Amino acid sequence: MERTDLGRVMAFTDGVMAVAITLLVLNIEVPDLPSGRRDELGEELADLLPSLGAYALSFALIGRFWAIHHRLFETVRAFDGTLMALNLTFLALIALVPFAANLVDRYGEEPIADAVFGTTLGLAALAHWTMVRHVLRRGFVHEHERTAAETFGGSLALSFTAIFLLSVPAAFLSTLLAQALWVSTILARYPLRKLGGRSS
Amino acid sequence: MERTDLGRVMAFTDGVMAVAITLLVLNIEVPDLPSGRRDELGEELADLLPSLGAYALSFALIGRFWAIHHRLFETVRAFDGTLMALNLTFLALIALVPFAANLVDRYGEEPIADAVFGTTLGLAALAHWTMVRHVLRRGFVHEHERTAAETFGGSLALSFTAIFLLSVPAAFLSTLLAQALWVSTILARYPLRKLGGRSS
Amino acid sequence: MERTDLGRVMAFTDGVMAVAITLLVLNIEVPDLPSGRRDELGEELADLLPSLGAYALSFALIGRFWAIHHRLFETVRAFDGTLMALNLTFLALIALVPFAANLVDRYGEEPIADAVFGTTLGLAALAHWTMVRHVLRRGFVHEHERTAAETFGGSLALSFTAIFLLSVPAAFLSTLLAQALWVSTILARYPLRKLGGRSS
Amino acid sequence: MERTDLGRVMAFTDGVMAVAITLLVLNIEVPDLPSGRRDELGEELADLLPSLGAYALSFALIGRFWAIHHRLFETVRAFDGTLMALNLTFLALIALVPFAANLVDRYGEEPIADAVFGTTLGLAALAHWTMVRHVLRRGFVHEHERTAAETFGGSLALSFTAIFLLSVPAAFLSTLLAQALWVSTILARYPLRKLGGRSS
Repeated sequence: MERTDLGRVMAFTDGVMAVAITLLVLNIEVPDLPSGRRDELGEELADLLPSLGAYALSFALIGRFWAIHHRLFETVRAFDGTLMALNLTFLALIALVPFAANLVDRYGEEPIADAVFGTTLGLAALAHWTMVRHVLRRGFVHEHERTAAETFGGSLALSFTAIFLLSVPAAFLSTLLAQALWVSTILARYPLRKLGGRSS
Repeated sequence: MERTDLGRVMAFTDGVMAVAITLLVLNIEVPDLPSGRRDELGEELADLLPSLGAYALSFALIGRFWAIHHRLFETVRAFDGTLMALNLTFLALIALVPFAANLVDRYGEEPIADAVFGTTLGLAALAHWTMVRHVLRRGFVHEHERTAAETFGGSLALSFTAIFLLSVPAAFLSTLLAQALWVSTILARYPLRKLGGRSS
Repeated sequence: MERTDLGRVMAFTDGVMAVAITLLVLNIEVPDLPSGRRDELGEELADLLPSLGAYALSFALIGRFWAIHHRLFETVRAFDGTLMALNLTFLALIALVPFAANLVDRYGEEPIADAVFGTTLGLAALAHWTMVRHVLRRGFVHEHERTAAETFGGSLALSFTAIFLLSVPAAFLSTLLAQALWVSTILARYPLRKLGGRSS
Repeated sequence: MERTDLGRVMAFTDGVMAVAITLLVLNIEVPDLPSGRRDELGEELADLLPSLGAYALSFALIGRFWAIHHRLFETVRAFDGTLMALNLTFLALIALVPFAANLVDRYGEEPIADAVFGTTLGLAALAHWTMVRHVLRRGFVHEHERTAAETFGGSLALSFTAIFLLSVPAAFLSTLLAQALWVSTILARYPLRKLGGRSS
């Protein structure tokens, strides 16, 4: 299947991820104050800071998934029904992030809320890793990009999945620990530039 | 009309389907618990499992419609006002799915709710099938893709429509039966790979 | 400015219109029934039929605007800041349609609601017509497409604007008359196929 | 990195900005009147005029940011991980605009609300300016577009940022002054046409 056909798969993927990432803002609710208490707006806005943090984290996570997906599909030159199904599964998990982020935003100190967030992101990372393994096994990757694609399917990529899944039991020890694990995936320098040595 | 013009029709179609599929997540509502009852969050989340099932099913259905639409338009090399109108009708039905899914999610045991879902999906399938017949009749299909396109306009494609429309009366016998019929359309291996023998 | 640059203007336009058209579904609210009154769901759904009508009409109107915009921009080969500003104004009015449609849906028998809808659509049509005049005056149109583009800037296109603006005072005579005027713009065969004789 | 890869970055950017700009309409709430008070709809709609003003202003601001982003990326021929991160930061701020606009719409006379809006837009402008500096420093700009890109990274572009950030303290003197500063950024003729002398 030629790149033009892949183009539409990517356009749909970009569309879903763009909508999901923008829906995150709906989780930050404008305070509802009666006219007599409008001078409390400052305090109410200060109370929104954790929501803003959840927004920034989720935005960064979806953004990073988008960047990785983007980099993977650059190396791909063909696809089949299985890849389509895997990609849809990946998107269904990404589209759940606004829900999971809202849950953490409102019930962040409840371990179960963080467990749901960790599971959603962990499964998304797993779906992505499975896609990489699939395109490599089926030979859907441009020959000169094979090393690049392999980076995404290697142990480093799997460690991304592992950190999210590890955050699930970690949340029951300490919700703060789980949240620190998520942040670490943002701070970790994913070796995007190594891929084919083209991205700097 | 050249492919570049078709490109914009597909971009708009992809946009509408990407938004509709992502709006599905808004149907999964974060539980609203007062501070004193936050330990019940686990139970409340367990109650959301049917919502998650409705989400997964609807996501898979729209995703499949997208894949079929995508595959059909790859074979198309021209369009007219009728195809535009049919495509808009198809999109109007797809954009209704978040509403129909929410209805099933909240009133799944009421036959009328399932009947609305089945009707929406059935009409969408019918609109798609009508598009296929139209492009074949008008000769809008690339010569070497004719066999491929015919698969989408044949009895197999029509059976897709039939299953959804059949689920409408079936819902009044048993809502579970209707829901099983929907799931069957996901599990059935739609012969995407047969089309022109290109997609593996 | 080359077509590639125009490509991104169109992609943004398609994005806004795709989101606006899909947000229309949020106006159809799933009935909220207590567990004891679930057998009334059928009646409640029947009460939603006017909402479904408003949905279908608004979807068709945005869809038609999209088709006309699409057809106009096919003829365009350059743009300037004024065209960008006009296009944004057009998009701001299209993005208001979900609001105006909701207003008509809930207060359709109040003339002022229909007047808001008619004004929104009328101004959108006017913004589009102004774009056509602008690209013609500035010579932004492909030479062999000039006749095609002129159709969109002629009296017929202006009558489209006129009908919507006429529906504003008409609403104060009879809301039904205003609504009939809107439907007439859908039924009227817009001479899309005449444009360059390419679209059939 | 070739233009095709950049194409997907721009498609994702356009998607986020298109969704954010269209979500602005959700801030204009249809009045909720009981059946006995429907004749008050006119007054209620008149009360929405400030909301409409906030909508128009925010739409124009996001639209202008889109136009500037679009013009910058036309000059860009390569990118790296830093540019991706800057672009995501820019998008995260643009996606916050519907929240900030809603805040101003509901609490416009409270200085803190206007300060949040000014900060959001100011940081977005700063993120954009940083992107320009980055692509210029790294030599990611087409040689013949260097002068064009430099306009976006010069003192004029920085003054755009300054006006928004200035509106933050200004809001505590007078919310009207802050709002006037925002409007001035729309009215100011940004020298889009100067860039490479191509856009007229």
